[in-house]
Amino acid sequence: MTTERQLHFNLFLHDTGHHEASWRLPDADPRAHLDLDYHRRLARIAEDAKFDSLFLADGPALAGDVGRRPQGRIEPTVLLTALAATTSRIGLIATASTSYNEPFNLARRLSSVDWISDGRAGWNIVTTAGEAAARNFGLEDQPLHRARYERAAEFLEVATKLWDSWEDDAIVADKAAGVHTLAAKVHAIGHRGEHFRVAGPLNAPRSPQGYPLLVQAGSSEDGKEFAARWAEAIFTAQPTIEEAQDFYADIKRRVLAQGRDPEHVKVLPGLVPVIGETEAEARELDAELDRLITPEYARRQLAKTLKVDPETLAFDAPLPDDLPGEDAVEGSKSRYSLIVDLARRENLTVRELIGRLGGGRGHRTFTGTPVQIADTIQQWFENGAADGFNIMPAVLPSGLEVFVERVVPILQERGLFRTEYEGRTLREHYGLPRPVNQYTLASVQ
Amino acid sequence: MTTERQLHFNLFLHDTGHHEASWRLPDADPRAHLDLDYHRRLARIAEDAKFDSLFLADGPALAGDVGRRPQGRIEPTVLLTALAATTSRIGLIATASTSYNEPFNLARRLSSVDWISDGRAGWNIVTTAGEAAARNFGLEDQPLHRARYERAAEFLEVATKLWDSWEDDAIVADKAAGVHTLAAKVHAIGHRGEHFRVAGPLNAPRSPQGYPLLVQAGSSEDGKEFAARWAEAIFTAQPTIEEAQDFYADIKRRVLAQGRDPEHVKVLPGLVPVIGETEAEARELDAELDRLITPEYARRQLAKTLKVDPETLAFDAPLPDDLPGEDAVEGSKSRYSLIVDLARRENLTVRELIGRLGGGRGHRTFTGTPVQIADTIQQWFENGAADGFNIMPAVLPSGLEVFVERVVPILQERGLFRTEYEGRTLREHYGLPRPVNQYTLASVQ
Repeated sequence: MTTERQLHFNLFLHDTGHHEASWRLPDADPRAHLDLDYHRRLARIAEDAKFDSLFLADGPALAGDVGRRPQGRIEPTVLLTALAATTSRIGLIATASTSYNEPFNLARRLSSVDWISDGRAGWNIVTTAGEAAARNFGLEDQPLHRARYERAAEFLEVATKLWDSWEDDAIVADKAAGVHTLAAKVHAIGHRGEHFRVAGPLNAPRSPQGYPLLVQAGSSEDGKEFAARWAEAIFTAQPTIEEAQDFYADIKRRVLAQGRDPEHVKVLPGLVPVIGETEAEARELDAELDRLITPEYARRQLAKTLKVDPETLAFDAPLPDDLPGEDAVEGSKSRYSLIVDLARRENLTVRELIGRLGGGRGHRTFTGTPVQIADTIQQWFENGAADGFNIMPAVLPSGLEVFVERVVPILQERGLFRTEYEGRTLREHYGLPRPVNQYTLASVQ
Repeated sequence: MTTERQLHFNLFLHDTGHHEASWRLPDADPRAHLDLDYHRRLARIAEDAKFDSLFLADGPALAGDVGRRPQGRIEPTVLLTALAATTSRIGLIATASTSYNEPFNLARRLSSVDWISDGRAGWNIVTTAGEAAARNFGLEDQPLHRARYERAAEFLEVATKLWDSWEDDAIVADKAAGVHTLAAKVHAIGHRGEHFRVAGPLNAPRSPQGYPLLVQAGSSEDGKEFAARWAEAIFTAQPTIEEAQDFYADIKRRVLAQGRDPEHVKVLPGLVPVIGETEAEARELDAELDRLITPEYARRQLAKTLKVDPETLAFDAPLPDDLPGEDAVEGSKSRYSLIVDLARRENLTVRELIGRLGGGRGHRTFTGTPVQIADTIQQWFENGAADGFNIMPAVLPSGLEVFVERVVPILQERGLFRTEYEGRTLREHYGLPRPVNQYTLASVQ
């Protein structure tokens, strides 16, 4: 049992890899995203390496061109439940939208995943940008950014009440008396708010973790405030250590201002490892992937994010000066700013920017040798930039394999990463407490 | 390969058994409903016996007293996905509500279960009676019976369009050209109806079965019309062979009137087997279970279904004459009539009625020896009353074990039930065709 501060690793599963052209590599299976055995293999590798968790992104709509890369994934709670059956320790974090779900249904489903996995469920809370999703749910356009976050906040209130609506000792199973569960320990929640009216209780006993680990990934002002109030782990895209340090300090400050313990919120920047035996080898892999990007698809996607006509983006010129600005964006504000800042800071042409985004979509790409990557991880971890990383291999499974075979052992030797799981639940892996039940608390007072 | 008409068996999973007092038996585990290993064991027994499918009921609210019996189950798509991982052939039928889900979310999730299980998903379509459920979704009371079925019909239109929105050959995976999927074979659905506006396409390729097997269980006039239009298998409660024959003929007639093939809709009455080596032994097991019913709970539940005050139901008197009548019921109309008809026909006291409902909730209880039960099954099957049965053991797992060890072999010897799976998908087990894709059809014409 170590008491030193330890790194946390989450594996961000993403088809054949996070690089958008990874499916075009000779060894890639372009139907991997629909293949349970493929995902089992990845989960096994990550669990053998003692990663904290697996994670799946999601949105209820197609994301742009279907020609560009594999689309149409298996819904995360379904895929992770299937993976729960063939793993025993690794956490399982599913993305689900507060804008396009009902709190009762989603709270109940996540509780079920926590039961099925014996305490390994996590929820990446998203508000879902984009009009494509909105139009699958009876709306003409997406709700405003602020409105989505207001709904999300009330959604979390409802969900946590529902998860607490059964006290942990409600089931008594008294066969002789014929009393299965004590009605006095199962509470209606009677929620009446601006967005939701939910009577409760949940139709499920409180799950092993109390409720799933709450994860959040938006880095806008609204997103950071929401994270400070609710998140226990934060996925974030930080291109440089300086920006990561600013973000880290800002989040921990906000968490403290909410009256929460900053150690109970783990900040995990995205990390796209591109690993070679030599730096040159790593760069060649990078270049090979970038050559496989179809520039027209990528430009169309970039234009959509920037809210401009694709024709206004010349491949060999920098971004135009007259972009609409973050305030005009009602989709993902933080993603917009990340991309524009990156292009301006490094004075990239559109073609160069596409290459950078194709690899890590704005996340930090670490191209180098195993030792160089381990050094960078340690540097970020020990200098207030990260509590761990969201590992996003450009190519799967090979990028994961080389990371766990070559980088993880270095970090273990340095005493920075576990060699065995010490806890049983996902929340225990991240060093987070099991939430106190608000109704038990209320009845004690 | 047999061409004879064959029985179909579905196992209705239900905690420690369908008898409401089954959890109070000495061997029962009162936490079985939360135990994945327990469900795996039941699934294994049913798959070894070559059952067509497993089935889970569901509703988004607690159903009455929590003291009475185990409540708060694992959500069916989650539990069945977990069971998909440890089975390979048996079908997996999840109940989900058209009143309290969005079509995009549910269509997508069921498609995912079909992918994960390699073509074994089924959907038991319910409109969800009761104000408890309504109050978890912002409503004060349940929508009217007719309105629920209108929404359900439009829900199915949307869902089937979404399932067809990717043609089966949309993915081309052309690495050289950099084209993963053909945009021309992925169709927006542009649905605009009274209840839903859904743009589509689904964010998932068409699943192995095209779409999940469609199952329905309501037996009201609205329910039967809905079933005739959409269902491929029907679960129904039929207390006598005569009533089952009438129902069977009525359904097949309605299916024909819809322009569908009556053989493509399988009628499966519920069957609660209580099996003994002798008739006396079977009756003793029945009686032991009924002694364990807590009459106050059961009377409260009965009063709720009948829309009367519990105090008006004297235990040792028949039902009062002045009941409100099916027309006044906006919940489950067919269940109301089933109970009242049963009590009147057999002139039961409230106490006797509670005993009958505690065992099979109005479904046909077969109490007897293995040969007697096999004879009855054969009689119903060969005389236009059933295409198979929804097996609802009063006690689990023991009631299932004795059914598969003692009754199934008799039916196999008589050539009425398969000894090996012949198909791969759930739809193949039931002898049903894979649905034609409406968009492929449209583009060919």
